[in-house]
Amino acid sequence: MNRKPRILVIGGLAAGPSAASKAKRINKDADVILIERTKYISYGICEIPYYLTGEYKDDNNLVVYSPAKLQKEKNVTVWTETEVESIDRRNKTIRVKDHKNGIRRKEEYDKLIITTGSNPRQLPFMNHTMKNVFTIKELSRAYELHNYIKQHKPKNAVIIGGGYIGIEMAEALKHLEINVTLIHRRKYPLSNIDENSGKLLLTALQSNGVHFVPESDVKSFGTGTNNLVKTVVTGNGVFNTDLVIVAIGVVPNVAVASEAGVEVGRLGGIKTDVKQRTNEDDIFAAGDCCEVRNLITRKPSYIPLATVASKMAWTAGENAAGGTAVFKGAIRNIALRVFEFEVSRVGLTIKEAEEAGYEVITETIEAPSRIVGMPGTARVTVTYVADKKSGRLVGATLIGKDGAVHRGNVLAAMIQMGATVKDISNLDMMYAPPFSPLWDPVLVAANQTLKKL
Amino acid sequence: MNRKPRILVIGGLAAGPSAASKAKRINKDADVILIERTKYISYGICEIPYYLTGEYKDDNNLVVYSPAKLQKEKNVTVWTETEVESIDRRNKTIRVKDHKNGIRRKEEYDKLIITTGSNPRQLPFMNHTMKNVFTIKELSRAYELHNYIKQHKPKNAVIIGGGYIGIEMAEALKHLEINVTLIHRRKYPLSNIDENSGKLLLTALQSNGVHFVPESDVKSFGTGTNNLVKTVVTGNGVFNTDLVIVAIGVVPNVAVASEAGVEVGRLGGIKTDVKQRTNEDDIFAAGDCCEVRNLITRKPSYIPLATVASKMAWTAGENAAGGTAVFKGAIRNIALRVFEFEVSRVGLTIKEAEEAGYEVITETIEAPSRIVGMPGTARVTVTYVADKKSGRLVGATLIGKDGAVHRGNVLAAMIQMGATVKDISNLDMMYAPPFSPLWDPVLVAANQTLKKL
Repeated sequence: MNRKPRILVIGGLAAGPSAASKAKRINKDADVILIERTKYISYGICEIPYYLTGEYKDDNNLVVYSPAKLQKEKNVTVWTETEVESIDRRNKTIRVKDHKNGIRRKEEYDKLIITTGSNPRQLPFMNHTMKNVFTIKELSRAYELHNYIKQHKPKNAVIIGGGYIGIEMAEALKHLEINVTLIHRRKYPLSNIDENSGKLLLTALQSNGVHFVPESDVKSFGTGTNNLVKTVVTGNGVFNTDLVIVAIGVVPNVAVASEAGVEVGRLGGIKTDVKQRTNEDDIFAAGDCCEVRNLITRKPSYIPLATVASKMAWTAGENAAGGTAVFKGAIRNIALRVFEFEVSRVGLTIKEAEEAGYEVITETIEAPSRIVGMPGTARVTVTYVADKKSGRLVGATLIGKDGAVHRGNVLAAMIQMGATVKDISNLDMMYAPPFSPLWDPVLVAANQTLKKL
Repeated sequence: MNRKPRILVIGGLAAGPSAASKAKRINKDADVILIERTKYISYGICEIPYYLTGEYKDDNNLVVYSPAKLQKEKNVTVWTETEVESIDRRNKTIRVKDHKNGIRRKEEYDKLIITTGSNPRQLPFMNHTMKNVFTIKELSRAYELHNYIKQHKPKNAVIIGGGYIGIEMAEALKHLEINVTLIHRRKYPLSNIDENSGKLLLTALQSNGVHFVPESDVKSFGTGTNNLVKTVVTGNGVFNTDLVIVAIGVVPNVAVASEAGVEVGRLGGIKTDVKQRTNEDDIFAAGDCCEVRNLITRKPSYIPLATVASKMAWTAGENAAGGTAVFKGAIRNIALRVFEFEVSRVGLTIKEAEEAGYEVITETIEAPSRIVGMPGTARVTVTYVADKKSGRLVGATLIGKDGAVHRGNVLAAMIQMGATVKDISNLDMMYAPPFSPLWDPVLVAANQTLKKL
C-alpha cells in the first residue's frame, strides 16, 4: 500500500472531532477525514440551557471548532453536509451523499470510526412541521429555539420529561420569565430517585415557580393554526402552551452501523471492546452511539454523557491510528444545577442496584456544608446506595446549596476505585471553616451507613 | 473487680472529649472522666481567625461542649483546672493537682486515654509577660487576643511563620484593617511548596497588602514599656509592631506520658498501633500528642490536624471501652483560604516525596474551574507529585479562586486508595457548565503528568 493510511470518522458533534484529532496526533502520516451530515461540527449540547438565558457568554455560538479551525489546528479534513448512507465492511468503503450537490460517491477507508451519537427520543404524534416543538440536541434546532423565544416571546412553556435536561431547561425558561409546566412520568424529578432526594428536588422546582406534573404521560398535542402546538394533552390534564420542549431521553444512532453488520448490544448501542473496537477489526466506535462497560456492575450500560464520550473518542482515535489505548468504562456521574440547588448523582440508583443483584442498603443524612456559623454554610443531603454483601458503595445522590456537586466527585472517585463504605469513612478529608465542617457530610453519611452494614 | 470500669481521659481540647464520649457510648457502664488543665474543654482552634474577624458567628465563643453540656449529653464526668502531673502505669494510677484548691490526689484507672495535644513552638526570647505576643492555640489566649485587638486597636502586626495558621491570621488581621508583616523562613508561603504554587500564593498575599518577608529568621524582640514588644528583629530588617503572632508550628505535648514510660517516636509523638494503643496495654493515646502512620509512605509522620485527631479519638475511645476499632492512618489534607484564593495541599510535598525515596515526577497545569464563558469560572493551578516507578500520585497542590479545595478532596481520596496517575486520568468526573469544564482540571493534570511517567 503506497498511499497514506486513511481514517474516516462518521459524525462530527463531540466524539467525532475528538477522535479525529487524536488519530491525526498519533499518526501524522494518516489522512483523517471527519464526515458530518449537518453544517456544524464540534459543538456543546450541555451549554444550550445557559446559552439561551445568556448566562453562558459565548462568542462562537456554542461551536468549539469550526470545520476551518479543525482543519487548520488539527490537520483533520472535514466534510460537512455529507451523509454516510452505508458501510461496506468487506470492501472497506462507505457510500456518502453530498447534500450540497446531491451527488453520491464511494470512499475507501483503512480504519473507520463511528461517532454517530444519539437521537432524541420522539413522541409518536410529534413531527417536524410543528414549529414550536423542540428537542435539545442539534445545534441548528438550538439556534431556532433561541430565535423562536426572541421573536415570539412565549408566555407559557410545557417541558415533557423531568430528567436532567428537562430540569435544566425548566430553570432556563424560568430565568427568561416564561411560565413552565414540567410533565414527568414519575413521582419525583429525575429517574429512580430516593424519596428524600426526590422531595427536595420537587420543592426546589416548585419554590421557584415550576409547575411540576408528576406521573403523567403525554397523550397528544393540540395544534392550532400555523403548525403551532397550543395544548399538551396528558392523563392528568390539558396544558395550554406557546412552546414545547421534548426531553424524554436519547437513543443510540446506529442505523448505518447496524445495517453494515456492526454488532449492537441489548441496550441498542454499538458493542466495543476496551479499545473501542467493534466486532469488525477495522471499525471503531465512540460516543453516544456506543454501549459502555459499567465499572460497578461490569455489565454493559448506556451512558450518553459528554465526559464518557470524550474518553471513548480519545481511545478510538488513538487505536484507529495504531495505538494501544484502553477505556475501561464509566460509573455515570451527573451534576446539575436546579435553581439555587446543586444536585449530584453518581453510580447506580437504588433500582439499578437492585436489578444488578446487589443486596441494597440505603441511608440518607443531612449535614452542614461548612461549619455552622460560617457564611455560605447550607445543609447537604447525602443518600448512599451500598451493597451489604461486599460493603461497597455503588451509588450516591447529593443535594444542597453549597458543595454538593464537588463532593459527588469524591464519591465518584471512590466508587470507581471499588471502595467500601468503610474506606469512605476512613477518608482523610480537609477541614477548614470556609469550606467544610470537621466531619464532612461524605464522612457523616459513611459513618451512618456503616451502622446498617 | 466489683466497681465499674474506670476510663480516664487526659486533655480536653478536641480529641479528649471525642474519645471520652465515644468510650461512654460503647460502654455505658463505664465511669468516663475527662481531665483538663484549663477552664475550657472542647473548643475550636481552627475557627479562631474567623472568630476574630466576626466572620464566624458563634454564640458559644468557640466552645462546642461546655463541661456541663458534655456531662449532660454524653454522661462524661469532667474535671477542669485539674492537671495530671504523673502516671504510674504499674499501679494504674495518676497523680493530679486540682488548681482550684491546690490539692494533689491520686486517681485509679482501668484504661487511660492520653489526649494531651500539642504545644505551640516557642521562640527562645519569648515569654509570657509579653502582653502583645500571642500564639494561636489556647482558648483563653484567643479571648485575650480578641480583647487586645478591641481595646488597643493595633495598627501594625507582625506574624512570625508563614504556615497555614500564619496565613489565615494574616488574612484575619488584614480584614480588621491592621497592617500585616508576615515573616517566613522560606522563599514562599507554606513549606516545601513548588515554585509555581509558591509564586501564586505570594501574589495572593501581596496583592491583598500583606508584607511578606521571605527567608528570614527572627533574632529578637525589642520591648518597650508595659511589657509590650515594639520591634521584631530579623536577619532582613527590623519591623515595628503593636502586635506579634507567633505561628511557627506545634510540638507534641508528651512530657507526662514520656516520663511514665509511654513510648515516644522519632518525631516526638506518642507511638501507637492501629488501635491507638500505646506500648502499655491499658494506655491509649489520640490526637496531636501522637504520631500517625502515613498511608502513603507507611512510615510514622506527624499530622497535627483536627480531622486526623478526631478519627484517632473515636478509635481510642472505642477501644478503651473494649471495642475493636482501627485507625489506619492519614495522608495529610490541608485546605485554607488566602483572601480570594482557595488552597489545597494533599499528601506529600516534593521534598517529602524525595526524602521518602520516591522517584519524583512533578507537573503543573492551569485549567479553568468551569467552562470559559460561565460566570464564576477561574483558573485552577494543579501541581502533581508522582512516583515514576509505581505511577502513583503521592501529593498535590491546588490553588484557584473557584473549586480548588473540593477538588483537592478528590485527589486525597485517590491518594488514599493508592491510585496511580492513570487511575486519575480514567476518573468519571461530572461535567455541567455551572460547575466544571468537560475535562476537569484534575483530569487535565493527570493527562499531562502521564506524559512524563
